[in-house]
Amino acid sequence: MNMTFSAVKRLLIGEPFPTSREVHERLDKVRGLAIFASDTISSNAYATEAIMHVLIVLGSGGLALTLPLALAVAALVLLVVFSYIQTIMHYPDGGGAYTVAKDNLGRYPSLMAAAALLTDYVLTVAVSTSAGVRAVTSAFPETLEYRVIIALLAIGFITWINLRGVRESGTIFAFPTYAFVGGLLLVIIIGFVRYFELFGVAPLPVTHEVVLKQKDLTGVAYIWLLLRAFSGGCTAMTGIEAVSNGVQAFKPPESRNAAQTMVVMGVLAMILFIGVASLATTMELIPGEGESILSQLTRHVSGSGVLYYWVQAFTALILFLAANTGYQDFPRLSSFLAKDGFMPRWMQNRGDRLVYSMGILTLALLSSGIVLIFGADEIAMLPLYALGVMLSFTLSQAGMSRLMKKVGSLQPGESLFTGVTTIHYEKNWRWKQHVNQVGAVVTAVVFAVLVATKFLEGAWLVALVIPLLVYLFDRIHVHYEQVATALSTSTVQESDLIEVANVVIVPIADVHRGTLLALQYAKRLSNDVRAVCISTSPQMRERVTARWARFPRLTAGIKLDIIDYDYRDILKPLEEYIAHINRVEFPDQLVTVVVPEFISPELTAQWLHNQTATVLRARLHHMKDIVVISVPFHITEENGQLKA
Amino acid sequence: MNMTFSAVKRLLIGEPFPTSREVHERLDKVRGLAIFASDTISSNAYATEAIMHVLIVLGSGGLALTLPLALAVAALVLLVVFSYIQTIMHYPDGGGAYTVAKDNLGRYPSLMAAAALLTDYVLTVAVSTSAGVRAVTSAFPETLEYRVIIALLAIGFITWINLRGVRESGTIFAFPTYAFVGGLLLVIIIGFVRYFELFGVAPLPVTHEVVLKQKDLTGVAYIWLLLRAFSGGCTAMTGIEAVSNGVQAFKPPESRNAAQTMVVMGVLAMILFIGVASLATTMELIPGEGESILSQLTRHVSGSGVLYYWVQAFTALILFLAANTGYQDFPRLSSFLAKDGFMPRWMQNRGDRLVYSMGILTLALLSSGIVLIFGADEIAMLPLYALGVMLSFTLSQAGMSRLMKKVGSLQPGESLFTGVTTIHYEKNWRWKQHVNQVGAVVTAVVFAVLVATKFLEGAWLVALVIPLLVYLFDRIHVHYEQVATALSTSTVQESDLIEVANVVIVPIADVHRGTLLALQYAKRLSNDVRAVCISTSPQMRERVTARWARFPRLTAGIKLDIIDYDYRDILKPLEEYIAHINRVEFPDQLVTVVVPEFISPELTAQWLHNQTATVLRARLHHMKDIVVISVPFHITEENGQLKA
Repeated sequence: MNMTFSAVKRLLIGEPFPTSREVHERLDKVRGLAIFASDTISSNAYATEAIMHVLIVLGSGGLALTLPLALAVAALVLLVVFSYIQTIMHYPDGGGAYTVAKDNLGRYPSLMAAAALLTDYVLTVAVSTSAGVRAVTSAFPETLEYRVIIALLAIGFITWINLRGVRESGTIFAFPTYAFVGGLLLVIIIGFVRYFELFGVAPLPVTHEVVLKQKDLTGVAYIWLLLRAFSGGCTAMTGIEAVSNGVQAFKPPESRNAAQTMVVMGVLAMILFIGVASLATTMELIPGEGESILSQLTRHVSGSGVLYYWVQAFTALILFLAANTGYQDFPRLSSFLAKDGFMPRWMQNRGDRLVYSMGILTLALLSSGIVLIFGADEIAMLPLYALGVMLSFTLSQAGMSRLMKKVGSLQPGESLFTGVTTIHYEKNWRWKQHVNQVGAVVTAVVFAVLVATKFLEGAWLVALVIPLLVYLFDRIHVHYEQVATALSTSTVQESDLIEVANVVIVPIADVHRGTLLALQYAKRLSNDVRAVCISTSPQMRERVTARWARFPRLTAGIKLDIIDYDYRDILKPLEEYIAHINRVEFPDQLVTVVVPEFISPELTAQWLHNQTATVLRARLHHMKDIVVISVPFHITEENGQLKA
Repeated sequence: MNMTFSAVKRLLIGEPFPTSREVHERLDKVRGLAIFASDTISSNAYATEAIMHVLIVLGSGGLALTLPLALAVAALVLLVVFSYIQTIMHYPDGGGAYTVAKDNLGRYPSLMAAAALLTDYVLTVAVSTSAGVRAVTSAFPETLEYRVIIALLAIGFITWINLRGVRESGTIFAFPTYAFVGGLLLVIIIGFVRYFELFGVAPLPVTHEVVLKQKDLTGVAYIWLLLRAFSGGCTAMTGIEAVSNGVQAFKPPESRNAAQTMVVMGVLAMILFIGVASLATTMELIPGEGESILSQLTRHVSGSGVLYYWVQAFTALILFLAANTGYQDFPRLSSFLAKDGFMPRWMQNRGDRLVYSMGILTLALLSSGIVLIFGADEIAMLPLYALGVMLSFTLSQAGMSRLMKKVGSLQPGESLFTGVTTIHYEKNWRWKQHVNQVGAVVTAVVFAVLVATKFLEGAWLVALVIPLLVYLFDRIHVHYEQVATALSTSTVQESDLIEVANVVIVPIADVHRGTLLALQYAKRLSNDVRAVCISTSPQMRERVTARWARFPRLTAGIKLDIIDYDYRDILKPLEEYIAHINRVEFPDQLVTVVVPEFISPELTAQWLHNQTATVLRARLHHMKDIVVISVPFHITEENGQLKA
């Protein structure tokens, strides 16, 4: 049974890795980019469209604002990327917003950042998987009714890959990410050549079936609309913080590799984003219910050739893979929280393949739950999404601004340990601090806009979950601290320890070989052994008395208490007998109970026997000052015959 | 948690009864008849119809054969009742076909009888409940789609009543049974007065919408048809054996009370059966898809007045209650089998209210399963039904015939103990034996007819299940015998017992107050205590070493083994360490392992802690020659603060 479970586990997960192998399991930059960038880069599948979807109210004149707004988002991305590069360089052990907030803003802001991020990671998995399934079901409409099952299978597959360990998953995820980036880059280059009439190429005509009505908005309504369009574009920003949490997943030098990956990721994502937004504006594309902006753009540019299908196929695939970002970050952030005592300790246990198995499984469960509740409909999930990440940006940048102030207080050559990391004198600290301050304010405003515009559509749920999580983290921490105090040896004197009573109680139901073994063991422990038998019938009393007399040498010196009992639940009088001896004869001392047990080699035959010993052990376990000794009597099978 | 479970149990089941109350819980004849007769008497709802349903092929001339066939069934019933009165008088401890077959025919016939009866009891519950539900859904067609749920609720209700104890259920079941019998008797009396023109009353006209075609069959086909009609009528015979199994449920004198109840039951059932059959023949009723024969008969006789609704309502109710017969007999027969080691021992444990709770629950589960599988459609279940009971009649009568032969070998005044019961000289043994022989042959023929006519419709399933159950009973018996031999003290010399090794192993992960307590306890047991720590990091080794040194007096004389380990699953090296000491240093001796455990008062907080100690205990439990001692360290809550 145990062997089989172990064998199945080996087959699925692979051989266990030694702890010392950890460094070898780390990511190089090529794999790291593929793993950490899929979320951010895949958002090109919908971010431009999210802006245009709001602007369309203003007609084609409004759509012309797409590019400026995309540039604003890009500027914000640059701000955030800059901030996170600072974070990576100053916090080489990783941890992102949580660590930065903990070090600079205190417990509750840091827990809030953690709760916000964890919520968003779960949503990342649910949203990306569902969006990937939508791509599949669009291609094969007959699979539509199985969308939930397909999404759950996809989550199961990603979970499995991640349980096998980080480097292998890096390898699996590298190709589709680069294939998507390469394909989309090619589309953008061809598009620029054709539509900006480079090299004398004439633009291809774009025809529309829709005729847009112009509409003019003024004042507050106009600004509100622009803000909403801008916040739609902010979906491009999810996943940026991923690298900063995962610094330790990179090969050494970790900070340097992580920072370089972050820069490449930011630049790539912005090139694709601005490229798509420019072309969409120039080509005067119109967002509609049917075809996505990215599909329209690719179709016009590539003429529905191989390139079109390439980009479409890898769009679907990278959406699936974006879910993987969650699998990198959720378990890692959970392990940070567990290490600090805010989440269950076992969240920081590394499994056979050196990954945080419990975190991976928890994420799989939670995101599967979301997929089930929302029926794999990512459109319904979107109002909940991107809020958490924006809140964490704000907290992270506010924290970095504080840290920069501390840096500013240092003299050249001076160092300071903040409690988490060591900072040194930096010349341009004030400039960095200003950037962080601006970043904090801007992301805070965007966060407020996101909450305001999406509150009734579902954002209220996130606004409820984040404080609840913070409360839960806090309660867990209190519990761990209290247990640690209770277990602590710091105030213990050797003389404080509880006494062990000399008595040993052996509950018996019959005199068989298992009982004899238990009595023999008990006699070795103490010269005050008391066998107790709860007799439910005169026959039982007679049988036990007679058999007891057959072993005079063994039973010599053992007191046999046979208690007649007119009910059938013998556990109650047994417990009372033991509790009475403990309370009256040996108060505040440890009383020992020896429970004879026989163990059959056929596990399936165990149900044929009364489980009284097992239940008794479990019940005594919860009584104070009782030590339970199980003396097992194993029956082995030899040539089909059971033997002692 | 435990308290709550206990309180809920009290509320549902009631206060526990002492064992000595058992006799007071027994049934008087009035309640006994209600409990044991509901199955047999309720078959009047369908038995006559079952005969006519076959005969209708022959037209109205064929239907005239109903009464002769009913008389034949009644004769068979009298034969069986006579046989069972003999059984009751000769086997006052009860047990029916199983006990009789065991005592006179040997193990396998007795197991076959038991398997046949148990199968039929499960079907009794499923069929009767479903038939009762059909009556409800006929009255309220809008409940038709909930039939399975209603049937399961009904089974749940009957289960609950039975778990509360036998006398209370007797009281609940008494009224509807007597109400049905009284109502139907009145209908029969009025019917006889009207249709046999007693007291000068002219018969009421009966009109039919159906015109029957005459059809003549000859030779084998004709006899086959008669046999099928006869076997249809045999559904009236289910439940007759109930009383013989339940002799011990009656107040003393048990045999006498049971036999009298059996006679009254047989006479009542036959009066009703012959009465209905006579009237149905005289009134020339025709069985149809729509209205049942019993309903037609009652309607014509009573003129759709109060009496009609009375009989109809209590027909529905008594069908529900017939299920109760199964609840009397299945647990009791299971307890006999368990006592003889053919079923799990706990089947003979009496619950808080002195009933065989496990048998009741097993029956509830199995019959609910049948209801679910067949969708509460009793028509589909019927081909499986009544086979088992007929097989048990055959085996029972064959056994009684053998017993009578033994009785015949006795001289006046002589007695013989058969192994189960004591028999005395009887004058008219040969006559009784002949009746039993005839009964055995006739029921065997009927059994053969039942199997032949219903085989393809489902009887094959029963023909498969009965031998399978016999095999299972046999395997269980072999297991218990082997365990008993292995545990037996009959060949044990006191010198044979295994030695207890002097070593005590204490696995530790850290040095906290729980560890100190375990070490202190271990030192009391032995002067060869070895603490073992599987260290997964240099920090862990350092911490344990430092803290260990803080308690020089306690740790003096204890060997501390810190083993560096490069994986994270520390259970494996721990098990190997313990097994190695057992194998190499102390072969064939008991090695003691002390596991420190800390127990939190908040059960809900238990999931916050690694369950290593629990898993270790479970794994060591399955290793040979290892004694596990759990030394619990309880943390208690005081004023919201956790304390040691």
